[in-house]
Amino acid sequence: MTRTLDLAVIPGDGIGPEVVSQALRVIMASLENTDVEVATTEYNIGAEHWLATGETLTEETMENLRQHEAILFGAVGAAPNDDRIPSGILEREILLKLRFSFDHAVNLRPSRLFPGSVSPLSEPGEIDFIVVREGTEGLYAGNGGQFKAGTEHEVATEVSINTAHGVRRVVRDAFERANARRKKLTLVHKHNVLVNAGKLWNRIVNEEAANYPEVTVDYLHVDAATIFMVTDPARFDVIVTDNLFGDILTDLAGAVTGGIGLASSGNINVDGTAPSMFEPVHGSAPDIAGQNIADPTAAILSGALLLRHVGLDEQAEAIEAAVERDLAALVDAPSTPQRATTEIGDAIIAQLSA
Amino acid sequence: MTRTLDLAVIPGDGIGPEVVSQALRVIMASLENTDVEVATTEYNIGAEHWLATGETLTEETMENLRQHEAILFGAVGAAPNDDRIPSGILEREILLKLRFSFDHAVNLRPSRLFPGSVSPLSEPGEIDFIVVREGTEGLYAGNGGQFKAGTEHEVATEVSINTAHGVRRVVRDAFERANARRKKLTLVHKHNVLVNAGKLWNRIVNEEAANYPEVTVDYLHVDAATIFMVTDPARFDVIVTDNLFGDILTDLAGAVTGGIGLASSGNINVDGTAPSMFEPVHGSAPDIAGQNIADPTAAILSGALLLRHVGLDEQAEAIEAAVERDLAALVDAPSTPQRATTEIGDAIIAQLSA
Ligand SMILES: CC(C)[C@H](C(=O)O)[C@@H](O)C(=O)O
Ligand SMILES: CC(C)[C@H](C(=O)O)[C@@H](O)C(=O)O
Repeated sequence: MTRTLDLAVIPGDGIGPEVVSQALRVIMASLENTDVEVATTEYNIGAEHWLATGETLTEETMENLRQHEAILFGAVGAAPNDDRIPSGILEREILLKLRFSFDHAVNLRPSRLFPGSVSPLSEPGEIDFIVVREGTEGLYAGNGGQFKAGTEHEVATEVSINTAHGVRRVVRDAFERANARRKKLTLVHKHNVLVNAGKLWNRIVNEEAANYPEVTVDYLHVDAATIFMVTDPARFDVIVTDNLFGDILTDLAGAVTGGIGLASSGNINVDGTAPSMFEPVHGSAPDIAGQNIADPTAAILSGALLLRHVGLDEQAEAIEAAVERDLAALVDAPSTPQRATTEIGDAIIAQLSA
Repeated sequence: MTRTLDLAVIPGDGIGPEVVSQALRVIMASLENTDVEVATTEYNIGAEHWLATGETLTEETMENLRQHEAILFGAVGAAPNDDRIPSGILEREILLKLRFSFDHAVNLRPSRLFPGSVSPLSEPGEIDFIVVREGTEGLYAGNGGQFKAGTEHEVATEVSINTAHGVRRVVRDAFERANARRKKLTLVHKHNVLVNAGKLWNRIVNEEAANYPEVTVDYLHVDAATIFMVTDPARFDVIVTDNLFGDILTDLAGAVTGGIGLASSGNINVDGTAPSMFEPVHGSAPDIAGQNIADPTAAILSGALLLRHVGLDEQAEAIEAAVERDLAALVDAPSTPQRATTEIGDAIIAQLSA
């Protein structure tokens, strides 16, 4: 009996298509000699598509995407100096729309200092943590407005909306992950100032802690968390936090682990009501697009997160181990010339069977 | 004709009194041979005071404080494991109350890598920037609430309120400072998600930019700003940003410049309607209190900010230069034993006349 893994693929713009195709190759290679077949359907979405059609994501496309088991996403975005696309449109009408419509409660972002990565910290230590960022609430709710806009009396508001339901599911997910790792959970918030949301997050973390007696819980204000991120990032195992703090901390974590070049992520629907989506954290990098020089490793690692999410843990681990071996081999061969996108894909596939 | 500089002094808790008394000594020393006399009135406020009286800041104390020209603040806060004081009370009823009641529009936080300071970055470069953080608005407005609190249907909100008036005065202040420095202003926000507040900040920065043609303006999303803070902090000259982003960025900046041990700050009323307040960024450090071992340098540098604010620029610069020489001398004498709080005060005073 074969199982079909039915994937939607959104290559997107710039280097998106190049890195996604390597991720797909590696996914396929990892599934050789199993009874899992991969079916892919490509969707044309992003800056180029918007320029050609004026469409970001139609309802029809959303309905089609919804039918798949998971989504592999490259990157969307035009060149920074291309002002034909109104600022924020692609982010809000594609990325955030997918997260919200498909109820991507958990924005999962692992941070590791891989072999050969150069941290800007002089003593980074062993960095290996994950950020479990809430993905559908908080200041991302799009709630707020302008009053007397454009005048000297303008008032602009942004409302952070936090629900017990939304917080609980992400907190539970974080406890589950902590329990399967080094059993340490850090809640990051700012409850001395954001007292209402802070009370809710605190309460739910305390309630769930009772179900995970082996997990140690601590708390940091977001400002203090950024300090630890540069003075002692090895202290973190699992961080759980809200949407905006998670956005900030994961970019900082990416920098501290040598740049977001290797950072993978998952936007996870925890109830299985819609497909989850996996994407490298980096953008579309139009300046290096089409030259076969982009590093596909983050996309490949996002593919591993995807496989783990659909229950193919063994293959996920195999890919992660292959990436690790590939990076370690590079460290041992420092005079290796810059590798092409496809060569990195080849090398990781070779490591898969090594 | 003598001028009297009438200061309110809030030594506070822990090491607060020790560092503030050195700051006052240095202020006095810098004013020797001038016609400025310093009058000080001490106010008993903080954790100890709360434990003794149950009072944070009474209306009477607020009225008295309001009469002074400026406030020198040490630090408030009990030991972290002292649970007699409800979390957040001192922050909100003292620190934030002073900022809001005295309309401290600009929270000024310089960041410098001083001689001898050890950055956690392997290549920090020449770090010398200031963050001009809005101090009275945004998510600090205390606006929001709990709905169905404590239930599975709880909704907790936090409202960021931003006014044209509030944004304009801090943006102007930032342009003025940039114009007097390296003429580079970076607006940090997250306008791709916080669209309403983002539009307001963008508009006002654009409008004011017309008045400062020599100042180059750029923009970073807050997540990207944290990346630059660890990969290229030397790129910053003046950062202008909202209350919460400023809170996060200044702690990170403190860490990147070797810890908040030397970080000074000013809470500035830009219209002169109430006294401005100057304080070291560090806390009350109860664990090392009363032992004459706390480093008073941040308090002393806050004293310099205070003097500059009241128009005593020459003395402010003299103190800053004295601190710089003191730190450089230490670098030249690496086997200097740990100095006492009072000895550091002595050394900086000696450098004042060097
Ligand atoms: C592009 C932007 C809307 C997005 C976010 O803020 O979540 C990005 O920064 C991210 O972290 O995925
Ligand atoms: C103590 C807290 C309320 C305060 C803030 O968030 O502003 C502190 O972190 C600061 O930066 O001065």
